[in-house]
Amino acid sequence: MVAICDIDDRALNLSKEIITKSGKKMPQVFTGDNYAWKKMVEIKDLDGVLVVTPWEWHKPMVIGSLEAGLKYVGTEVVLGITLQDHWDVVKAAEKYNANVMMLENVCYRRDVMAVLNMVRQGLFGELIHLQGGYQHDLRGIKFNDGGHAKEHGVEFGEKGYSEAHWRTEHSIHRNGDLYPTHGVGPIANYININRGNRFLSLCSFSSKARGLHNYVVKWGGENHPNAKVKFKLGDVVTTSINCANGETILLQHDTDLPRPYSLGFRVQGTEGLWMDVNNSIYIEGKSAKNDEWDEAKTWFDKYDHPLWARWSKETAGAGHGGMDFFVIHSFVESIKRKTPTPMDVYDAAAWSAITPLSEQSIELGNETVEFPDFTSGQWMYRKPVFALNDEY
Amino acid sequence: MVAICDIDDRALNLSKEIITKSGKKMPQVFTGDNYAWKKMVEIKDLDGVLVVTPWEWHKPMVIGSLEAGLKYVGTEVVLGITLQDHWDVVKAAEKYNANVMMLENVCYRRDVMAVLNMVRQGLFGELIHLQGGYQHDLRGIKFNDGGHAKEHGVEFGEKGYSEAHWRTEHSIHRNGDLYPTHGVGPIANYININRGNRFLSLCSFSSKARGLHNYVVKWGGENHPNAKVKFKLGDVVTTSINCANGETILLQHDTDLPRPYSLGFRVQGTEGLWMDVNNSIYIEGKSAKNDEWDEAKTWFDKYDHPLWARWSKETAGAGHGGMDFFVIHSFVESIKRKTPTPMDVYDAAAWSAITPLSEQSIELGNETVEFPDFTSGQWMYRKPVFALNDEY
Repeated sequence: MVAICDIDDRALNLSKEIITKSGKKMPQVFTGDNYAWKKMVEIKDLDGVLVVTPWEWHKPMVIGSLEAGLKYVGTEVVLGITLQDHWDVVKAAEKYNANVMMLENVCYRRDVMAVLNMVRQGLFGELIHLQGGYQHDLRGIKFNDGGHAKEHGVEFGEKGYSEAHWRTEHSIHRNGDLYPTHGVGPIANYININRGNRFLSLCSFSSKARGLHNYVVKWGGENHPNAKVKFKLGDVVTTSINCANGETILLQHDTDLPRPYSLGFRVQGTEGLWMDVNNSIYIEGKSAKNDEWDEAKTWFDKYDHPLWARWSKETAGAGHGGMDFFVIHSFVESIKRKTPTPMDVYDAAAWSAITPLSEQSIELGNETVEFPDFTSGQWMYRKPVFALNDEY
Repeated sequence: MVAICDIDDRALNLSKEIITKSGKKMPQVFTGDNYAWKKMVEIKDLDGVLVVTPWEWHKPMVIGSLEAGLKYVGTEVVLGITLQDHWDVVKAAEKYNANVMMLENVCYRRDVMAVLNMVRQGLFGELIHLQGGYQHDLRGIKFNDGGHAKEHGVEFGEKGYSEAHWRTEHSIHRNGDLYPTHGVGPIANYININRGNRFLSLCSFSSKARGLHNYVVKWGGENHPNAKVKFKLGDVVTTSINCANGETILLQHDTDLPRPYSLGFRVQGTEGLWMDVNNSIYIEGKSAKNDEWDEAKTWFDKYDHPLWARWSKETAGAGHGGMDFFVIHSFVESIKRKTPTPMDVYDAAAWSAITPLSEQSIELGNETVEFPDFTSGQWMYRKPVFALNDEY
């Protein structure tokens, strides 16, 4: 790591501490205003850059990095805000013949990859219907007291710290599936989206919005200024998607109500299905009992993906149960080998465009809207490349 | 029971055996052609009639019974086939000032009623999002060998026995949520549909259809005549519904693929949720651990519905785990007390109309379509009546 840019002093100091403790050389540090990153990406001969900033900064920073000559740009989810943002990044990546990889770590979750292995070996038969989502109580992340630890603060924006500083605004001004990629990334790999298949159309439904307002009133009182804020984001947003090869996808976004965390995967084919919610798999003729669930673990142990079988020791200490090791590893290995990243700008755009499309669908009264084809027809010819072996 | 009508000799004989074994007096028997039932409903002073025939016969038999002067008509799900069918039954019930009750037994499932009890006591807070469905591998029911027992027969229609004789045709000619009421009936009771709330609009998505064809080929071979049949029904049909009070509902219909049975209920409010799939409940501030599921059983034991608490002994031997006792009991008690049935013609029409509306939505390319208001505005004033106490 040769350089780091952060304009938040608290976060920057945390990074410096980690680097110091690691014993590695302190990288060049960039800080200052919102455009400090522009100086960093102009360092000569950078191999790659990681964009890990608020959502609305992904697009300008990715495109700015491409314009500065970088050939490998990794970005946190999501790729952009508007549909046009997504086109802009795709066109920039094409113009500069560069790799833009969205760092969707759930694609590398151990069970998700075991299921990918099972899908490719035909255990589920022909895939028919898939589900996923983001069902995560974020109330304690969308609000805090501006400091570190105190539970149940109800501040956000200028007075909020970390994600509460910026992420909460999206719940005030937007209604749609704001965070689709954890759910749809793995699904896209299962059914080869942009690689022989593509998303065709989408329709989203939104429930009423109660959770965030209730949280402010509960912990801040009825007279807290934020009790007057109107949140546009429905508490549960449900999205159905049609695919070119006839599969249906169901995605759910559910971040403002009390609930245990669950991405809610379901992978269902002509021979059987995986249900994430109850950790179960059923495969006709192969499961222990007719019409009864097997514990998923018995299948996952048997079909552990070669990547996990080889690298599981290296994941110790990596974030999110080891997933983060793999997503960074694959980005870095792609750079070293000068090969395309295993998830590319078309994947990033297709997965992330679900957000503006779902907003549009809800705004139009639950109209079904068409997906753009960011590959301009190349989806018919492109081949699957994600995690084909144990390398990266 | 004073009369019975069945035009299928095998089924009729089974019924007679049961009656003989019971020691009760053999009722008057009607049989013959498709209209033999017309003679039965003209018996003088009948208290009520139960229509338990193929779907397409429910509407004519219900209306025929009303025209013959019956004031209590119970019908198996669903109420009708087309949207007009549903209007016709509603108008007939209004014209004759009679009760039409759809015998939706899942409304009486013990866990479903415990959750109703919890909903009414406010445990889940304000309800936000609800799910249910019909996820039941019916391949062995849609096909048989025309006889009794042989597994894996692939005949239907003229050569099929029992449900394979008629039900399979609906999978050939129709694509939609063909069986919505097991899922939506309990949900409608939770959020007071037709009683202060109503369904507003609906959108359905359908996956490709593979399961039934594959089944025919697997057990009958590629050269079996039924391998040429094209099935229109998508293997998984997903339906989203908007409600007047801002809740969203998600329904799934999934009958043609191998899978363990599950109605997939989810009842989610501002304070917590029930998930049927993993038999779990989470209630904020009341569950044992923060952000972790409780076993649903601990809640169900505590909130057992008064009806089950009082009548559970009587359910022994009744069909479908005891549910069937309650639905028949409530129909009979309504007759005895000369009161309206706890589920009425408006409930039947609203729940069952999901089928033709979902067909229309899919036919129109996943267009969101409006629900009719069968109550003609009375939904704003009507009060909940279902299972308010331990009587029926």
